[in-house]
Amino acid sequence: MKEIFAEVLTIGDEILYGQILDTNTKWISRELDDLGIKVRRKTAIADKKQDILDALDESLKRSDIVLITGGLGPTKDDITKKTLAEYFDMELELNPSALEDVQDIFSRFGKEVNEINKQQAFLPVGSKKIKNERGTAPGMWFEKGRKVVVSMPGVPFEMEAMMAKTILPKLKKHFPLPVIVHKVIKTIGIGESWLAEEISDWEDNLPEHIGLAYLPGKSQVRLRLTGVGADREQLEAEMDKQIEEILPRVKKYVFGFGDIQIEDAVGEMLKSRELTIATAESCTGGFLAHRLTAVPGSSEYYWGSIISYHNDIKKGALDVDEKTLEAHGAVSAETASEMAVGIRKKFKTDIGISTTGIAGPDGGTKEKPVGTVWMAISFGKNVETRKIQLPGTRILNIEYTAVHALNFLRQTLEKQ
Amino acid sequence: MKEIFAEVLTIGDEILYGQILDTNTKWISRELDDLGIKVRRKTAIADKKQDILDALDESLKRSDIVLITGGLGPTKDDITKKTLAEYFDMELELNPSALEDVQDIFSRFGKEVNEINKQQAFLPVGSKKIKNERGTAPGMWFEKGRKVVVSMPGVPFEMEAMMAKTILPKLKKHFPLPVIVHKVIKTIGIGESWLAEEISDWEDNLPEHIGLAYLPGKSQVRLRLTGVGADREQLEAEMDKQIEEILPRVKKYVFGFGDIQIEDAVGEMLKSRELTIATAESCTGGFLAHRLTAVPGSSEYYWGSIISYHNDIKKGALDVDEKTLEAHGAVSAETASEMAVGIRKKFKTDIGISTTGIAGPDGGTKEKPVGTVWMAISFGKNVETRKIQLPGTRILNIEYTAVHALNFLRQTLEKQ
Repeated sequence: MKEIFAEVLTIGDEILYGQILDTNTKWISRELDDLGIKVRRKTAIADKKQDILDALDESLKRSDIVLITGGLGPTKDDITKKTLAEYFDMELELNPSALEDVQDIFSRFGKEVNEINKQQAFLPVGSKKIKNERGTAPGMWFEKGRKVVVSMPGVPFEMEAMMAKTILPKLKKHFPLPVIVHKVIKTIGIGESWLAEEISDWEDNLPEHIGLAYLPGKSQVRLRLTGVGADREQLEAEMDKQIEEILPRVKKYVFGFGDIQIEDAVGEMLKSRELTIATAESCTGGFLAHRLTAVPGSSEYYWGSIISYHNDIKKGALDVDEKTLEAHGAVSAETASEMAVGIRKKFKTDIGISTTGIAGPDGGTKEKPVGTVWMAISFGKNVETRKIQLPGTRILNIEYTAVHALNFLRQTLEKQ
Repeated sequence: MKEIFAEVLTIGDEILYGQILDTNTKWISRELDDLGIKVRRKTAIADKKQDILDALDESLKRSDIVLITGGLGPTKDDITKKTLAEYFDMELELNPSALEDVQDIFSRFGKEVNEINKQQAFLPVGSKKIKNERGTAPGMWFEKGRKVVVSMPGVPFEMEAMMAKTILPKLKKHFPLPVIVHKVIKTIGIGESWLAEEISDWEDNLPEHIGLAYLPGKSQVRLRLTGVGADREQLEAEMDKQIEEILPRVKKYVFGFGDIQIEDAVGEMLKSRELTIATAESCTGGFLAHRLTAVPGSSEYYWGSIISYHNDIKKGALDVDEKTLEAHGAVSAETASEMAVGIRKKFKTDIGISTTGIAGPDGGTKEKPVGTVWMAISFGKNVETRKIQLPGTRILNIEYTAVHALNFLRQTLEKQ
């Protein structure tokens, strides 16, 4: 089967000049990928006629599908529609059905259509209107031989509805597509190069139609297998067999599969073991609690936290002994232990976990430089402590500490 | 003065196939924009030799600068370096200084360099090494006539340090650039179109060499003035005069200038008023504390938090009356008030601020749908409450609530 290639073209100064973050093309790429359409290139260009004409022409030469977002607003600086009409040599004409759609949207908000908005109902004759259920700019579907060009508004909320409801189903009908399967193994606590060394012989022996990618993140590496085939069931089985083969070797680093986050994995472990937890945070300042509570349904196992930024709170609210603070300092195994024990007792949970460290940029000393972090877990009859030394900026130190703490928790729970 | 054009080339399947969000090119574009370098195009391509060669060649024909990120990892699927060496017809050779850098990084973590990592110290002869202070893959600087190609790792943390420390200064030296001045006014609590209406006559009267952009964010709009000229001092004075003119009209929405965040602004206000604060969080689950403690030096005014995810904690640790919870529920003005008063009393601070709401996706009712949030501030003799209704997903509701709470705090402090 011939591979079907797509390109995504983003039109607009605000993406090009870095004024806003482009979330559209990530969303579009994943959807196309799931359909087995290969994204060959993504391009962002300015709202300029010649740039649009050039980029579109190049993309259409290389690929079967060109998805365009942006440049369809009602203001004069949006020239995408006119430029597309010129490229395809079509006239712009008032499309009565598009006008109805625009009027519908306005009446929903109790407003009248003005002249500027009416312009949005003018479409190139020969293109197909794609209904915009969430905004006033319709999408357009063009065909050139077997190739397809689609123009959509840049507002994510509008574009996504249009893609999901109309464009993806139309593409599926228009092109014969292969089966693509992705399987992602999520690891934590091992660097990319060590992981690669660990599994290089397995990687070398993967069949040609199954590819492997290392996707590194904060203290984490995602291993992504991508398989291409004709039969989904057979391909999935084949890939699962490959994963089974490698899993025992990397098991202690694996916390889950697919889109799972470390806090989801830990949450599942807590739920299945019917355990509750509370946090006592100093240097992470609430970020560990945030990660834990980012999980829907976390209130089932997460009771709460005391953030003891000030040492008085460590003593008063967490019952850390004044003598401990004096003898060992706030950033120490001893203080971390007493914080974890203290929060567990106060909040009456099965587990208490604490962090205390120097996030920076100030507050470091020779013995305890910026990035020194102690954490502790009080669980059953034990308190375990762990020290890490982080090299980053304040925000990164906070984020890494939270990830380390979540992994510490995972390892503790796995011993059960 | 001739305009200098740049293009950004992103190499890697993970961006192309939508596995990760591209934050790099936004960051890079803004930095280039600040220098007066015009980004003409951004392109994302796969980790494939021919695609890299084609895209690089096209970009270099159109523009003066090509900045490449990604594809420099130690594993075999990264082929950027070899491909660049081929494009520039250079041999790869072990670079002793690059090897030292790699060894340095590893010894910092008490680890030995393995064979795979050693590969990272091989560089094309004729390129200049760009030191990577935060990772093992060095950057490379190539020149072709007056044109420049730079290759950087894709890890944002590594790329940003490399750009800021070495590449941006080198570009500034290499190319004659106009004077560009950006001035940013940060507003909160007013929508983009309302703001535009408020200041449209002023906007229309701006001189041609000063442009205005509306950059919307979470409950915030940044107004960015961009001036182009020959003399920095004169341009700055001219722009300051424009800002002075408009400021009185939008003053109540303005919390600062430049890169300042709302938590920085609030922190400054607390410091200058010598006030201390503690938080009591339910639905934000630590995220409000995280925003407050993201500010270096926040320990001066921020004492800590009790996150009362479980209602027992609201009662036990925050002294919320059981009857209040029964009569009004956890998400109510009454509970929010008692939480704010409770934390202020417990932690002995000047101010107590609380959040309680339904972040979703579950837990909504007809009277209190997902996105219903109450917050309260206890300060002086008063407790003020505020209700917001948010339309988003769990994470967005958490983030918006924190921003609203910070703005609520700003407005409360401004009355002092």
